[in-house]
Amino acid sequence: VRRFVIVGQKATAHPDFSLDDLPATSGRLDVLLRCVQTALLVSHGLRRDAMVYLVLLGGPSAPRTIRIDGRSAEYVRPDERSIAGLARKLLAAAIDEPGFVLLAHGMSVARGGLDAVLADLAQMGAFTPYVLEEGAADLREASLDLGNPVFFLGDHLGFDPSTRARLAEIGATPLGVGPVSVHADDVVAIVWNELDRRDAANERPSYRPD
Amino acid sequence: VRRFVIVGQKATAHPDFSLDDLPATSGRLDVLLRCVQTALLVSHGLRRDAMVYLVLLGGPSAPRTIRIDGRSAEYVRPDERSIAGLARKLLAAAIDEPGFVLLAHGMSVARGGLDAVLADLAQMGAFTPYVLEEGAADLREASLDLGNPVFFLGDHLGFDPSTRARLAEIGATPLGVGPVSVHADDVVAIVWNELDRRDAANERPSYRPD
Repeated sequence: VRRFVIVGQKATAHPDFSLDDLPATSGRLDVLLRCVQTALLVSHGLRRDAMVYLVLLGGPSAPRTIRIDGRSAEYVRPDERSIAGLARKLLAAAIDEPGFVLLAHGMSVARGGLDAVLADLAQMGAFTPYVLEEGAADLREASLDLGNPVFFLGDHLGFDPSTRARLAEIGATPLGVGPVSVHADDVVAIVWNELDRRDAANERPSYRPD
Repeated sequence: VRRFVIVGQKATAHPDFSLDDLPATSGRLDVLLRCVQTALLVSHGLRRDAMVYLVLLGGPSAPRTIRIDGRSAEYVRPDERSIAGLARKLLAAAIDEPGFVLLAHGMSVARGGLDAVLADLAQMGAFTPYVLEEGAADLREASLDLGNPVFFLGDHLGFDPSTRARLAEIGATPLGVGPVSVHADDVVAIVWNELDRRDAANERPSYRPD
């Protein structure tokens, strides 16, 4: 499974945002929602070997993390508003237990941020962490774990110092995607393209149709 | 200038669609709007050497084409709803003259579809047409015109036969981006990544900050 963890420094963990003006009311949750589209959806289908975590560090309920698991997700529509509506529903749920609580097909929420993600990843077995950073070693030239890579991305604000420190602590390998600083969802598209190409070279189909 | 032409087979050319449910009311204009984000926007800025054409072949006013010119565009916000609102305003304008009519900073609309685009391109001088197609020769291995390339993309329905024939007629070179069929906006992200990398290799800055 290929996992993408998007850390939103101010993205709201509270459902009280407006679908009519996401950028101004959600701490730029829209940046993270676009990563959901790109991480999970392909033409006419869903990537069944993909998972995405949205780490929400803003707003009164922070930190919370939304997890969407492509293996069992249903009804992930491609437009931003639909995904925003989905996020709002998930964030409105009361979460009392520790860890990720399954709320709908493939959709879970945890109280907690990066630490909740790392605990969840550890539970699922071995994985290889990568952190996407401007100016880091080129993804195209890097050796990549095609089985269980986990890609950590910042939002439009980058990473806060404590996230950066934690990622260094777990030994995340820095990777860069190119010379221009592009939006997080474009980074996800470029990473997937590299994975898809390597899968094809290894005769391993990365996209398992529904 | 790098140009992206997205052809929407059923995307509406009429402003009467709902911002609250783009996929169901606009003939999947949302697919094209996401290409605007990716073609024009980078982190904290706008690509000044980019232009995007949305060819709208659906709805009662079809065909119409929206053109957004990165050299002079202003107020391009990154979220889907804002770009949809912008498209709605542009499509509501009465267009009587032939060719592209400038309606706002960098934003124009023409009555007409692919032929209007080709006439506009011809007016602007020499260009090299490419058509993005599944299974075509790999973009990474292709020689590319870095000065004035024009990339033609289909929407979720691909190209209709007459568009395909017209593109063959003008000698558009088929290019593929990888083994998996991804959304049009992800294709744009992958194409830009290749251009950015070649620009860097040529010590030519592709992203000119505002």
